[in-house]
Amino acid sequence: MSRPTIAAVARAAGVSVASVSRVLNGLPATEEMAERVRRAVDELGYVPDARARSLKVGRTFQLTLAVADVGNPVYVTMMRAVEEVVSAAGYRLVVTTTGPEIVDEVALVRGMARGYADGLVISPLRVDDDLIKSIQECDVPVVVAGNVPAKAGVDTVRANSPKGMALAVEHLVSRGRRRIAFLNGPADTVPGEARAKGFADALRAHKLQAVAQVEAEDFTFAAGREGGRALLELGRGTVAHEVAARADRGAAAARPAFDAVIAANDLLAVGLMHELAAAGLDVPGDVALVGMDDSELAEQCFPPLTSVNLGSAERGRRAAELLLARIEDGERSPKRIIVHPSLSVRRST
Amino acid sequence: MSRPTIAAVARAAGVSVASVSRVLNGLPATEEMAERVRRAVDELGYVPDARARSLKVGRTFQLTLAVADVGNPVYVTMMRAVEEVVSAAGYRLVVTTTGPEIVDEVALVRGMARGYADGLVISPLRVDDDLIKSIQECDVPVVVAGNVPAKAGVDTVRANSPKGMALAVEHLVSRGRRRIAFLNGPADTVPGEARAKGFADALRAHKLQAVAQVEAEDFTFAAGREGGRALLELGRGTVAHEVAARADRGAAAARPAFDAVIAANDLLAVGLMHELAAAGLDVPGDVALVGMDDSELAEQCFPPLTSVNLGSAERGRRAAELLLARIEDGERSPKRIIVHPSLSVRRST
Repeated sequence: MSRPTIAAVARAAGVSVASVSRVLNGLPATEEMAERVRRAVDELGYVPDARARSLKVGRTFQLTLAVADVGNPVYVTMMRAVEEVVSAAGYRLVVTTTGPEIVDEVALVRGMARGYADGLVISPLRVDDDLIKSIQECDVPVVVAGNVPAKAGVDTVRANSPKGMALAVEHLVSRGRRRIAFLNGPADTVPGEARAKGFADALRAHKLQAVAQVEAEDFTFAAGREGGRALLELGRGTVAHEVAARADRGAAAARPAFDAVIAANDLLAVGLMHELAAAGLDVPGDVALVGMDDSELAEQCFPPLTSVNLGSAERGRRAAELLLARIEDGERSPKRIIVHPSLSVRRST
Repeated sequence: MSRPTIAAVARAAGVSVASVSRVLNGLPATEEMAERVRRAVDELGYVPDARARSLKVGRTFQLTLAVADVGNPVYVTMMRAVEEVVSAAGYRLVVTTTGPEIVDEVALVRGMARGYADGLVISPLRVDDDLIKSIQECDVPVVVAGNVPAKAGVDTVRANSPKGMALAVEHLVSRGRRRIAFLNGPADTVPGEARAKGFADALRAHKLQAVAQVEAEDFTFAAGREGGRALLELGRGTVAHEVAARADRGAAAARPAFDAVIAANDLLAVGLMHELAAAGLDVPGDVALVGMDDSELAEQCFPPLTSVNLGSAERGRRAAELLLARIEDGERSPKRIIVHPSLSVRRST
């Protein structure tokens, strides 16, 4: 007896072949539909040969999102947005972590040749020619949620950190803060570099000088605590004369040289927030604090954190749409989309 | 000319076939190794036919972790642990989200028949016979990080929530708290049911009665805020006489009937924490607060949250090990592992 076909299953279930395919591919379907298909599959003893089938139809109905750190809440926001778009189009999203190193990003992109997904959205922390080459040569469509040069000819969706920094500085200035410090992440990363430049430009526009600036080792909470301690140390050092002058006023002597800090992401900001509390400093009374990413953590931390929204949800949505469009039409010319930032003001400023 | 083989690439690169395979599969490799392999691939014009190859060798070197909500920090902890184990064994981990509904969990498990991964660790929020059947029939090995009946004959790693609840109650009692309330998640979920039972048992063991009990709509921060408001409302209602009696003491009248709350996870606890602050209540002065999961958020929130560590990292590690063992030997008898809880005491109690 020959093996039952998918068409036979569809006939037995009284549904379309496409519906059988949806159910067998684990895509969303009504429970009733799924039940009918499963009953027909059981009755006929139909065995889907998944790998052989994907070889034939050339689609896996799976898309990959690769991020540096699945524990960073900014990626959670992006993930949710990508998932919403691709699952509406009948794809399952799988998420994988590259870590912060380029070599692992490149390995991931080259690994797409294994063919277990129809496309990739990658949000790389670091970019070099090797990575760009691997993206250009990739067997499946790739969209970069991040910043790669236009000459790479790759679909990209990126944030505008300099504009975001300008919003943060403007807001702090409007609240009367002038002595602004900066807690950056590693400056050799794409976001680290963009934010350092944005911070410098924004201060210049307001004719201000950075009071203190520290580069944390990573974009994590732990790095934020460590960087926060360094910043407090630095903030103390740079104003020895001020501290002395204020010593008459007693308690105020413990205040740092800065009255506001901008952190390069929310995790760093929250790490710093703990160090400020440990130093007996009130947020926003003594130090106003602005984060970046406007992640779920900004709302969850205490006091809730004013944060620059760099549009991670919209970037996720737009990247997913670009990827779906590229899958449909591999010949369309590459698009470069910039998502504009906004500021979510909360109690930390 | 015949297509170059992977063996030819290995010879040209001066490395083993296994090393070529690692690089081509996008698995971690030294940059030097990767470079040699890529150069040989370029020179020979080797094209890996991924889907055909996986059909032949029957391995994708990819494993799936399915969780209810990729935004819940408890899953981040588990994810990191699973990833560490499987990547050391040469697999890439991909993570996918099922959401809270059984029908989507089942679709995911059945979708494994597509063959894009060699195994699955699933942490289901809800379990029924349909889900168990789909796991038993699954084409690839499945390990459940959660609670399924022994008769299912499935490898499982689960937490001991009742024991965790006992630790939380014991700790609160040792700090002199007797009027303990409970903020649970949905009681029709596996964790919700286990925690409700554990809470009741633990109070009984200390001859205490629950002062107030609320079931939040979900295990999220937003549900924690809403549930927190309901709990404060309830806490006010149940002790009208006490409040009246204390009215003489002035400010204390605003205090709720409870002096401690246990929340069913950290997100709920942090949501509640914001509502307590909004009501002018001090943590732990007025209300001591214990979360569950001991996630990164417990450390990040303010004040840092005492939380029951249900061993999510160890559960992830053990589940990954069971999965790798099952992939090697499909005939081994199913293992049921219970990971014991501990308590991470922080400033909220």
